[in-house]
Amino acid sequence: MLILLTNDDGLTATGIQTLRQTIEPLGEVVLVAPDRERSASGHGITMHKPLRVEKQYFGESLGYAVSGTPADCVKLALEQLLDRPPHLVISGINKGANLGTDVLYSGTVSGALEAIINGIPSMAVSLDLRGNELFSTAADFILKLIPIAVKQSLPSRTFLNINVPDVESTEIKGIQVAKLGARRYVNSVVERKDPRGKSYYWLSGVLEDKAQPDTDVWAVAHNYIAITPVQYDLTDYSQLTKLKTLEERNLWS
Amino acid sequence: MLILLTNDDGLTATGIQTLRQTIEPLGEVVLVAPDRERSASGHGITMHKPLRVEKQYFGESLGYAVSGTPADCVKLALEQLLDRPPHLVISGINKGANLGTDVLYSGTVSGALEAIINGIPSMAVSLDLRGNELFSTAADFILKLIPIAVKQSLPSRTFLNINVPDVESTEIKGIQVAKLGARRYVNSVVERKDPRGKSYYWLSGVLEDKAQPDTDVWAVAHNYIAITPVQYDLTDYSQLTKLKTLEERNLWS
Repeated sequence: MLILLTNDDGLTATGIQTLRQTIEPLGEVVLVAPDRERSASGHGITMHKPLRVEKQYFGESLGYAVSGTPADCVKLALEQLLDRPPHLVISGINKGANLGTDVLYSGTVSGALEAIINGIPSMAVSLDLRGNELFSTAADFILKLIPIAVKQSLPSRTFLNINVPDVESTEIKGIQVAKLGARRYVNSVVERKDPRGKSYYWLSGVLEDKAQPDTDVWAVAHNYIAITPVQYDLTDYSQLTKLKTLEERNLWS
Repeated sequence: MLILLTNDDGLTATGIQTLRQTIEPLGEVVLVAPDRERSASGHGITMHKPLRVEKQYFGESLGYAVSGTPADCVKLALEQLLDRPPHLVISGINKGANLGTDVLYSGTVSGALEAIINGIPSMAVSLDLRGNELFSTAADFILKLIPIAVKQSLPSRTFLNINVPDVESTEIKGIQVAKLGARRYVNSVVERKDPRGKSYYWLSGVLEDKAQPDTDVWAVAHNYIAITPVQYDLTDYSQLTKLKTLEERNLWS
């Protein structure tokens, strides 16, 4: 079995390295990940500048540090760096949760998305940090999940978004297969003045606390591992027919 | 009527300014947009550094240049800069199409998304460039669409993703309400050597040409204006029940 790992925290981050070490017994592991933390630097494909790649070994596994985004890493791995298609792509373990609406902006998720766009099954794995940084809880879980996920093969356009509470394995209450919740940040702009009296603004992350049951947000908050099947067609099919009436109006000339 | 405009090409870009000028007769227009082109610089919310804002007038309209992303601009506008909630947020007119899978990585789209996450109806508007830069074709269309869209109010979690061909209005064949198509880039890695003989890579954008009818990709390629209702819940509900069996397995300890 060939497993490709990527992330958006960078190739040497604890999350991806803990995962690599834990799952190495399952087969060949190759890491293709950004050369530094990319959380804040775009999640699309880099078209406007060339990408550099540096090879580096970690334990038994080959790693490539790429000067690009997680999506770049997966694209480059599939089309250039790997000698055959991987059986599975795993993006993570991310340092921080990727729940609900967050997934739209998540670099970790974009790595998993790029895989399924190219027809390779994938997972995005994130640790909901609580000061313990117990990446091993998530890695141990993924080690057991991989054989099941590969056997019970997922549909081609869906990946698993997995969030694990940052607690000891013994404190995990179970698994919840849950939909994406809403994560709305409220009253989130803070105005400050600089020494010259000019305003600047911080967007703070005050989460509105209304996590509903059956959501990933609720599950993780209650010490469950949340698993959400995620697809990438954002079309709102329920509105498609209703809007068809627009086609009858001549609004373009 | 209060309309908020944003984009990811920057406050002074031709697309947003053409739109501003065209729709000013409809009511009060406020522009809150990035202070420079942000297409390649991340689409999330900026949490790790403060945002600067500069005021500037354009015609009858007030504009704010923000040192952040389109999502930052919308958040800051709704919570800080506007004195009341806008009736509509429009992101664009983007210089370049945002079709199919592109919408997942689009800054233009993230501006519209941030609006509906906060309960404000929105549209993302993009021009499918063909060397003419006829932003007026798109702007004239939006001018006519706004009153209809506001009257026929959209559901609260859906926005309209609109792509307009870069041709004269007289060449537009009509409107197609279409689902998001697949835009897969193939054979897209090009390897080069630098003067020292070291490899680097370009991700080129060779589009796989299999646009299916009923998709936005097909519609725009055939000179229709494509309108797609887009929502932001990526949960794959069809898989949610199937995966429930995972909950019965003890994989976490």
